[in-house]
Amino acid sequence: MIYLDNAATSWPKPPAVIQAVADFIKRGCANPGRSAHAMARMADDAVMHTREILAGFFNISNPLRIVFMPNTTYALNAAIHGIINPGDHVVTTMMEHNSVLRPLSTLEKAGTIRLDFIEPDRFGRITIQSIKKAVTKSTSVFCMTLSSNVTGAVMPVAEAGRHCRANGVLFLVDSAQGAGAIPVDVENMCIDILAFSGHKGLLGLQGAGGLYVRDNVAVRPIVQGGTGSFSDSLEQPDMLPDALESGTLNVPGIVGLGKGVQYIIDTGISAIFLKKQRLLRMLMEGIDKESNITVYSPPPESNSGILAFNIADMDSSEVAYILDKKFGICVRSGLHCAPLAHRSLGTRDSGIVRISPGFFNDENEIDLTVKAIQGIARGTYR
Amino acid sequence: MIYLDNAATSWPKPPAVIQAVADFIKRGCANPGRSAHAMARMADDAVMHTREILAGFFNISNPLRIVFMPNTTYALNAAIHGIINPGDHVVTTMMEHNSVLRPLSTLEKAGTIRLDFIEPDRFGRITIQSIKKAVTKSTSVFCMTLSSNVTGAVMPVAEAGRHCRANGVLFLVDSAQGAGAIPVDVENMCIDILAFSGHKGLLGLQGAGGLYVRDNVAVRPIVQGGTGSFSDSLEQPDMLPDALESGTLNVPGIVGLGKGVQYIIDTGISAIFLKKQRLLRMLMEGIDKESNITVYSPPPESNSGILAFNIADMDSSEVAYILDKKFGICVRSGLHCAPLAHRSLGTRDSGIVRISPGFFNDENEIDLTVKAIQGIARGTYR
Repeated sequence: MIYLDNAATSWPKPPAVIQAVADFIKRGCANPGRSAHAMARMADDAVMHTREILAGFFNISNPLRIVFMPNTTYALNAAIHGIINPGDHVVTTMMEHNSVLRPLSTLEKAGTIRLDFIEPDRFGRITIQSIKKAVTKSTSVFCMTLSSNVTGAVMPVAEAGRHCRANGVLFLVDSAQGAGAIPVDVENMCIDILAFSGHKGLLGLQGAGGLYVRDNVAVRPIVQGGTGSFSDSLEQPDMLPDALESGTLNVPGIVGLGKGVQYIIDTGISAIFLKKQRLLRMLMEGIDKESNITVYSPPPESNSGILAFNIADMDSSEVAYILDKKFGICVRSGLHCAPLAHRSLGTRDSGIVRISPGFFNDENEIDLTVKAIQGIARGTYR
Repeated sequence: MIYLDNAATSWPKPPAVIQAVADFIKRGCANPGRSAHAMARMADDAVMHTREILAGFFNISNPLRIVFMPNTTYALNAAIHGIINPGDHVVTTMMEHNSVLRPLSTLEKAGTIRLDFIEPDRFGRITIQSIKKAVTKSTSVFCMTLSSNVTGAVMPVAEAGRHCRANGVLFLVDSAQGAGAIPVDVENMCIDILAFSGHKGLLGLQGAGGLYVRDNVAVRPIVQGGTGSFSDSLEQPDMLPDALESGTLNVPGIVGLGKGVQYIIDTGISAIFLKKQRLLRMLMEGIDKESNITVYSPPPESNSGILAFNIADMDSSEVAYILDKKFGICVRSGLHCAPLAHRSLGTRDSGIVRISPGFFNDENEIDLTVKAIQGIARGTYR
């Protein structure tokens, strides 16, 4: 089996991730922040350790401004529903995932906000010029992805951040696609709120992602509950991380996430990006001569690791089905939970075949994949 | 180390749980419900398998009415914020956890609901008489715990459910404390919405709990996002489980939860309850003669597995500290995220020492614990 669906969930995981999770569960997996006994303190330390690793990784000065959440969807909702006020002007892009589009659309339909969308170019790229045009001093929040989950296009986050900061606009970044390959520096990029996924580029397990919230940015909790702190009060505490971390944390998942990010730090994020670029270039060059293939992804230099394409007028699901059944190659097809991206790219009916190599794929796997795609495009596969 | 904090998180886990989680991550942990390739289908099957195990365990006829969520706190918030309408009369008890009290209190303070609390007896028990008095035809929602997380008192859930059903009141049950020891049958108990925790009595890992929602009960999603379904729409889909399961699920956690519940089914829930009762009786009888110990827990027959007590006027944290440092015994102290329970029990200042044995504790551990408590109570420990 050749796994090329790393944009959904990365696989395999570094052995250290699996080992650490299994060891932690065996050695003792108590509740952090509730009891004070030895095993609970071990859980406390484990959670804090991952906070510190993530803080270093994203250049966050205070690890306690990092909040653990089950996934990026939850993190983005917690941010969007927690910062937006009635009457706000919110800007986002047509390249966003439904985890941004659906909560914003819910607020727009309820008459709570005014919502504007920035259109991409034909590779799904958003230009800084279009951002500067749409995001003005009267805008409250600008929300953008680090990189498109459909085409892999890397967005001009640093420039957008500086524009937002200069105009007093809150800048919310969805780093689910791209973190772990594209360096994220919240200070340098002027990011106010960063949502991150643990199970994609950060090489952790499903079930542990989170949110970074800059100092002095207040996010109202959408969930209230036990925090292990101020337990006598019926009110949710204000301080982070407690305010946004009600309920028992996914400690094994957080342990795995820490190991995943440590693996990236030890390997070097640029080595990971270069490897993905190399594999992507092989893929792109391999199918370049097929006249009936349409490519929607930008070149590897400005791509977080995705080849998005279609073959002639074949439905993307059919192509993915053949790759799976005939060649044992795992890719994703369809609409990728990003409806406006597909409207913009003109692939609302066909969907798109998405190939997303990971750091652990090798050239041989890519070679076999290129040959398989060529066979499908030419109708010569058996 | 003697671990007696199973009411927070159960430990150790059955070896099959750890094995299944580690195997699943190694073999391939793709996204369920998004891609259609072989590894994604394996994730689909794994999630569905756990849904079916839980459905059998709770006597739920349609497994698709079970929604996976990160923990009970989230599940209770999703239920409370998703079903309550302005003007509703809501009844709950003083024995609830902050995961119920804080969201309800937030809604009461916002003027959205009228909120009434039922008082317990001195062991934290809520009588069916007091429920019948407080919950009337004009009540919209009654929310109650299956068993107190402070004293272990088992609540009259079946009788309460029948009263609610007869009066058209929506019945929401928090089973975090008790599920896995006290049988839960949603049909027989007339439960409309059941929140459950995976990492306590169900013997799974932290990070995977959930919600059961009865047919024809609508819960508005507090989080909107990618569901892998109806991806072209900017609106959150209506159908379950998708409507309440946005974002990538914690598949390893769900796999572990399935194995944990299967372990309970194979062992027999009554064997588990009887073992916990036996250990609890040993504890209670062992400290019964200490005149300066106050016990807040009801007898083992109506107790899900907790001994709550204090020694003279010692702060509960001091007792727990000595148990940890001098004897290597892990218990919890303090307020247990249930402020009104402590106000009712008169332990707001001292907190309570909570000992919660699990199925994997043995008589020898309990014996050592009894001796340690006696030593502290008599001032004779070294």
